[in-house]
Amino acid sequence: MLKRKRIIVVGGSAAGPKAAAKARRIDNDAEVIVLQKDPDLSMASCGYPYYVGGYFDDRNMLLATPTGITRNPQFYLNAKDIDARVNSEVTYIDRKNHRLNYRDIPAGTTHTLEYDKLILAVGATPRMPPVPGIGLEGITTLHSMKDADFLRSIRDNKTIKKAVVVGGGLIGIETCEALNLAGIEITVIELLPQLLTFLDWELAKLVENHVKTKAANVITGDGIAAFLGENGCLTGIKLQSGTELPCDLAVVAIGVNPNIKLAKEAGLKIGKLGGIEVNQYMQTSDPDIYAAGDCIETVNRITGKKVLAPYGDLANLQGRVAGENAACENCITFPGTIQTGICKVFDYAAGSTGLSETTAGKLGYDIITVINASPDKPGFMDGLLIITKLAADKNTGRILGAQCVGPGNVSKQIAQWAMAIQGNMTVEDLVNSDLPYAPPFSLAIDHFIATAHLMQNKMKGRLKGISSTEVKKKIDSGEKPFFLDVRGPDEYEQMRLGIGETLIPLGALRKRFNELPQDKNQEIISYCKISLRGYEAALALEGAGWKNVRVMEGGLMAWPYTREK
Amino acid sequence: MLKRKRIIVVGGSAAGPKAAAKARRIDNDAEVIVLQKDPDLSMASCGYPYYVGGYFDDRNMLLATPTGITRNPQFYLNAKDIDARVNSEVTYIDRKNHRLNYRDIPAGTTHTLEYDKLILAVGATPRMPPVPGIGLEGITTLHSMKDADFLRSIRDNKTIKKAVVVGGGLIGIETCEALNLAGIEITVIELLPQLLTFLDWELAKLVENHVKTKAANVITGDGIAAFLGENGCLTGIKLQSGTELPCDLAVVAIGVNPNIKLAKEAGLKIGKLGGIEVNQYMQTSDPDIYAAGDCIETVNRITGKKVLAPYGDLANLQGRVAGENAACENCITFPGTIQTGICKVFDYAAGSTGLSETTAGKLGYDIITVINASPDKPGFMDGLLIITKLAADKNTGRILGAQCVGPGNVSKQIAQWAMAIQGNMTVEDLVNSDLPYAPPFSLAIDHFIATAHLMQNKMKGRLKGISSTEVKKKIDSGEKPFFLDVRGPDEYEQMRLGIGETLIPLGALRKRFNELPQDKNQEIISYCKISLRGYEAALALEGAGWKNVRVMEGGLMAWPYTREK
Repeated sequence: MLKRKRIIVVGGSAAGPKAAAKARRIDNDAEVIVLQKDPDLSMASCGYPYYVGGYFDDRNMLLATPTGITRNPQFYLNAKDIDARVNSEVTYIDRKNHRLNYRDIPAGTTHTLEYDKLILAVGATPRMPPVPGIGLEGITTLHSMKDADFLRSIRDNKTIKKAVVVGGGLIGIETCEALNLAGIEITVIELLPQLLTFLDWELAKLVENHVKTKAANVITGDGIAAFLGENGCLTGIKLQSGTELPCDLAVVAIGVNPNIKLAKEAGLKIGKLGGIEVNQYMQTSDPDIYAAGDCIETVNRITGKKVLAPYGDLANLQGRVAGENAACENCITFPGTIQTGICKVFDYAAGSTGLSETTAGKLGYDIITVINASPDKPGFMDGLLIITKLAADKNTGRILGAQCVGPGNVSKQIAQWAMAIQGNMTVEDLVNSDLPYAPPFSLAIDHFIATAHLMQNKMKGRLKGISSTEVKKKIDSGEKPFFLDVRGPDEYEQMRLGIGETLIPLGALRKRFNELPQDKNQEIISYCKISLRGYEAALALEGAGWKNVRVMEGGLMAWPYTREK
Repeated sequence: MLKRKRIIVVGGSAAGPKAAAKARRIDNDAEVIVLQKDPDLSMASCGYPYYVGGYFDDRNMLLATPTGITRNPQFYLNAKDIDARVNSEVTYIDRKNHRLNYRDIPAGTTHTLEYDKLILAVGATPRMPPVPGIGLEGITTLHSMKDADFLRSIRDNKTIKKAVVVGGGLIGIETCEALNLAGIEITVIELLPQLLTFLDWELAKLVENHVKTKAANVITGDGIAAFLGENGCLTGIKLQSGTELPCDLAVVAIGVNPNIKLAKEAGLKIGKLGGIEVNQYMQTSDPDIYAAGDCIETVNRITGKKVLAPYGDLANLQGRVAGENAACENCITFPGTIQTGICKVFDYAAGSTGLSETTAGKLGYDIITVINASPDKPGFMDGLLIITKLAADKNTGRILGAQCVGPGNVSKQIAQWAMAIQGNMTVEDLVNSDLPYAPPFSLAIDHFIATAHLMQNKMKGRLKGISSTEVKKKIDSGEKPFFLDVRGPDEYEQMRLGIGETLIPLGALRKRFNELPQDKNQEIISYCKISLRGYEAALALEGAGWKNVRVMEGGLMAWPYTREK
């Protein structure tokens, strides 16, 4: 053991600096050293797409404190008494002797340092598709400050006309928006049948439809077969389907792999998903080595299973726990993640927390879902639409997951659901939630509460819902339910599905029961713009004796397919 | 009992229509009648200030469905099969015979109706100060559609130059903003020492300071003694202090009293606070009569005590419960309120949930509070300041209350705290919350989580905080702590307290320890803009042997008093 306790943090992006700062605050006597391979420290990497997209022009804002001081080694030394060394790549960990080697990259020299506690915050590396042409100039990722500088220069130089984003996940979509804002014609390519796989298909499709309205092209269910080039420069891509797309730029965003080389070589345990294994203290299989951030596997709090969750907020929280525990010998724990995420998509946001229907299904949960499409605020306060899909345990009503898309305040809705999940709350706990109401901020019955009401009504068998995807299946298989649109004629004139529906406005329905199928067992599917009137219509029909009435959840607003109008 | 079950709802504003609609949905066979004294139904009364303030011009938006259909008796009949009668004032309830009388106001006739279940949703009446001149023309409230029409006409006619708002609560502040937007010079008068009593004094003072920057005057700690007039018209007001203020308009907003006359005359039990007493089913002392909305007393879920909570969202939720129970004989319960509220105040919002320090103190809770001033988003995404005061149980860490003011996203913060309180969560449960993070929506460590971190640090004795009010007391009583401002010289030049502080930037602190009091027991109070650097400075000083260092919570941003600069 060294005379003065020495805590070394490997990695200086998110988890690393947080761990170092926390360790310093807990133990004022310890020596805290950060070894960072890159030339920068504490980069706000989640901000790269917004720098590229021109939301702001001052690159230093990604690297500076709110008062404008660059978080460089000088800053860390003076303000935090932390010895941060950049361009310093750790190459070897000698666990037995509590020592590591690092290379001073510019000088080309190698140095050895002893440690008492080590914290690995070494991040992840973007995956690259193993296809021909991957080495061509014009192919990049958006992962490092260097990448951000490169893509920003493309924005500023205005030489690129067409670009392809490979991967329709969170970073892919953010990059698509950024480059679109730079005036570049974009095509997003996604191998899976949908964008943003944290969403279920029908919500992802609504996002895709929105992306397409912004003059960005989207191709799903097709992967990249090759990058095409001339003279070493990218000129296009070839898809697995054979389609060729000309482009001058390709941004690859198909996910990341945890950086485990150093840990593996040191003999630390690696999990089944390919991340460094840690316990609740963020401690690796070596009690003197902690790990945090994108390089580890963490626990999903709902399922208890390990997951890879490379998110900036989790990295910070994990870093804080690792830093404190390295300084004080395991006094706090990290409970895991519920995989809450959000993404700006042009004028929409798309967010999710907990389990999607797809994930819950794969894990064998017995779930019930409901869709609510309604505004975030009153019409007179310019309320905007949000579409929420809620998943709960069918037996207990415990909230398992919620996802939400639309132009409205998605972020607040997801935050509320995230708190409900973390509080182990059930639908019954939520139907009378007391939330901050005033017209500039929400409806009298907030969208969140209304969603819980719908779920309660569905669980009690009052709301007999059918999803848009089930409706589409019926149509495609030739079934002929009676489709009842209960909106007004003006609304019908402006927008309609065109699936053979009959229009009878809700207000006239009770007088026009004779226009409905006289066989009371015939299936009727009612809907309106958001299916609130559709619900009332269904209740009225049931009251009049129809036995097989269902409400198409979310109405026209949640319909992900093409409409007649 | 009537052949067809008849449910009569008295009142057609918020709780009433909701109860009627729910009763209809639960029991399709019942006869549902609404008796409404006013000429309108289902008015969005919380929207009145925004109509008056010109956020929108179409009056019908306050009375219409999102698709623009006015919620009049015809609409209720056709769309909901509800018999809604306006201008119909219930004058007498004959409980023994399950009968009531109501007066058709325009016709001047009285009618009798039998009921099986009755739901009282009769609202509240604005309090008026019992002072001379109260009958003068030019004195109004903002409670009814008629009031809204009157004040909107004042906006449109542009004849009024000076107005007084009597009462600095939620409605008073909203009215102040509305009239200010109409170009009227406003003075808000509040008898208590602060505006918005759901906030503790220091946060209310920050709101007051903001209101004053908007050219509205605020007088606290002074009540109205008389309205002054000429020829029956208001010309000014006289305060208890003797001050006279000329004005052409006065809006009284000093709270509301539950309307209990009908219930009292019918012999229903009235609570100690003056509202109709109901149980968890929203049932009055007569099992066939329910009540909901502003006319009742409800339960505070934290304290278990009865409170008056006349909020639009609660009215809707209570109405839903009353409607369902009237239809199905008590199948659901209402859990009560945590008194969550929010109010737009020009460019600020001010919100609160749970108990304030003041309220918790009166009730004898052993609480600990902390203040966090920090932005809602990164600087590069134009993050805006929010100032949160959190109150937790000192022993268990259970969240008891949170209040929040500022230009940032207050509504989301309060919603998160409200969920934490309703989930019975503790500070430890929240420090690793998984919330939706992306730079357009929040900081990597959301303000909410950062607040929990501060509270955790304070509970563990790491953060030794002192509030701005305690600091002010020290200054006023002649104490001379060493005040240490650890910001940069530029920041100091732009803005400073001027309380005899010494400026030593955090980055230089460790080299300038010699400029600090050499008596290590001397009290030092450190701060910065938001007191994050102030906290780091305190830890550095403690590490160097100073024993009595405290951090001024929230720093300059939470300082409610005047500054030198």
